[in-house]
Amino acid sequence: MKRVFSGARPTARQHLGNLLGAIDNYVKLQKEYDCVYCIVDIHALTTLQETDKIQGYIRDLALDWLAAGIDPQKSIVFVQSEVPEVTELHTYLSMLTPLSWLLRVPTFKEKAKAQPDNINYGLVGYPVLQTADIILYKGEVVPVGEDQLPHLELAREITRRFNGLFGDTFPEPKAKLTEFPLIPSLTGTNKMSKSEEGSAIDIAHTAEETTARIMAAVTDPARKFRKDPGHPEVCNIHTLHKYFSASAVSEIGKQCRIAGIGCVDCKKLLAKNMNEALAGIRERRADFAAKPDYVKEVLADGAKRARVIARATMDEVRQKIGLR
Amino acid sequence: MKRVFSGARPTARQHLGNLLGAIDNYVKLQKEYDCVYCIVDIHALTTLQETDKIQGYIRDLALDWLAAGIDPQKSIVFVQSEVPEVTELHTYLSMLTPLSWLLRVPTFKEKAKAQPDNINYGLVGYPVLQTADIILYKGEVVPVGEDQLPHLELAREITRRFNGLFGDTFPEPKAKLTEFPLIPSLTGTNKMSKSEEGSAIDIAHTAEETTARIMAAVTDPARKFRKDPGHPEVCNIHTLHKYFSASAVSEIGKQCRIAGIGCVDCKKLLAKNMNEALAGIRERRADFAAKPDYVKEVLADGAKRARVIARATMDEVRQKIGLR
Repeated sequence: MKRVFSGARPTARQHLGNLLGAIDNYVKLQKEYDCVYCIVDIHALTTLQETDKIQGYIRDLALDWLAAGIDPQKSIVFVQSEVPEVTELHTYLSMLTPLSWLLRVPTFKEKAKAQPDNINYGLVGYPVLQTADIILYKGEVVPVGEDQLPHLELAREITRRFNGLFGDTFPEPKAKLTEFPLIPSLTGTNKMSKSEEGSAIDIAHTAEETTARIMAAVTDPARKFRKDPGHPEVCNIHTLHKYFSASAVSEIGKQCRIAGIGCVDCKKLLAKNMNEALAGIRERRADFAAKPDYVKEVLADGAKRARVIARATMDEVRQKIGLR
Repeated sequence: MKRVFSGARPTARQHLGNLLGAIDNYVKLQKEYDCVYCIVDIHALTTLQETDKIQGYIRDLALDWLAAGIDPQKSIVFVQSEVPEVTELHTYLSMLTPLSWLLRVPTFKEKAKAQPDNINYGLVGYPVLQTADIILYKGEVVPVGEDQLPHLELAREITRRFNGLFGDTFPEPKAKLTEFPLIPSLTGTNKMSKSEEGSAIDIAHTAEETTARIMAAVTDPARKFRKDPGHPEVCNIHTLHKYFSASAVSEIGKQCRIAGIGCVDCKKLLAKNMNEALAGIRERRADFAAKPDYVKEVLADGAKRARVIARATMDEVRQKIGLR
């Protein structure tokens, strides 16, 4: 089986956008690949200011992943900083990565714009550390959305350069382009986001919280009164029905257009269906969270297995570079 | 005793410029300080293209140091990459070091000019890795020449920022400004240099090689014939007499000015005195080199002792940052 590598930053609990996008995909990939899933806490340092929250976020992310069906018997699930060999490889790769390659990465330009007072050296090197993450475990396949393609292209370029200078060592990681469904924000603007207030339903929300958040959500702004006909094509609640009320969605749309159903009832139906769909994952999450050491044990075991691969890679890397 | 940290890149055998400048100073510092002397092989990667030579250079540098009197019973002598914790600290420090601080470092600007096709990310981060080197061992005093002062000022700024963000962890390293004697090149231009052909006398040169190199050296260019009076103040051979023929130097200068002594005899005298002065260090070097595993054992022991300090520091660092 080929090896998949993917990582996520522990910066918040995971929401439906993450679940229906990345996480469900991670779960599926386990059937066909040898998967390494990494909670990249070092990457979180590039933008996270309150680092005292990282441990809580790590636990949350692990619980979300495990509850969703990432199987720690099958896949390696671990925390990046617990296998510090990645920072060693990162440092070596930094010696062969031209600065110019990094400054032209679109996500760097965006972040530099977003935090002009905090353009740190590590932020520039984000794709170098990402490359180290992938190739340390000799990852061959990396599931990515379209926005991550430039990073993966850079990872391939850095890998080629290493192989060219020091001899074939790493497989060139290939992108597995994944179309992530665009889950809308409850606020009606863009996609569901952890940072926008009232935008997201988290996996870890209770059924009551979920219902309350949906009831407070923005709908079709043109539909001011119950009797006004609605426009499901611009309504985020309707879009969510597509995922959670699939069999009834065309009937719901029809009723909305003729004002046969009001927004309140439409939302209640969504909340009910969503809570039903999420009941299993939420129950598992609560079970895992109740076992005091379960997450710790999973992550410790994952780090142990990851370290075996990492150490073998680094022995090879040091030899190839000439450091041993 | 306060802790001194200093490092040298393994990029060539050490010559008289290194010996009379840095190395003799290292030896002296051992009396007053707890010294950590590091062969910084990772730093060598920023500019060294033929990395298959590193191991030979590491051995040479260690032999030069040990022969000169660095005492591995007293000081910690080790190779940087054998304590990879430094790359972990380097990666964390990279997250809190503004890119702008690094781009304004004079030595970066020089190197970027010298190798415009190889401005790699690691080259920009050179002072970040240097800072990690120093503070990983909680170095308090760093012997530096004037040209290294901006690097040390940057190390202090990065250290202050870490302490400010995560609580007092590291002492701010202080520069111990050291006036290095300017040892002239045998070619008559500037100072003795490893990269200029015919410029240097290495510690490891034999007496015969030393004599041959001195006999081929450039002297006062205005003194074309034996009968011409010389100008010792512009003659590099005369400058070297100051270090190796101290008691006779004023008489030698006088004879040169009146053409009482020719360049050939003047050089023979220098070669004789230099070879006498270096006989001890060269003998020790040959002895150490003859014991097959001596250097390896010294460096392995040094790495072991360095790692004890490094691991304790990193345990503290991970806690302070919030990664544990």
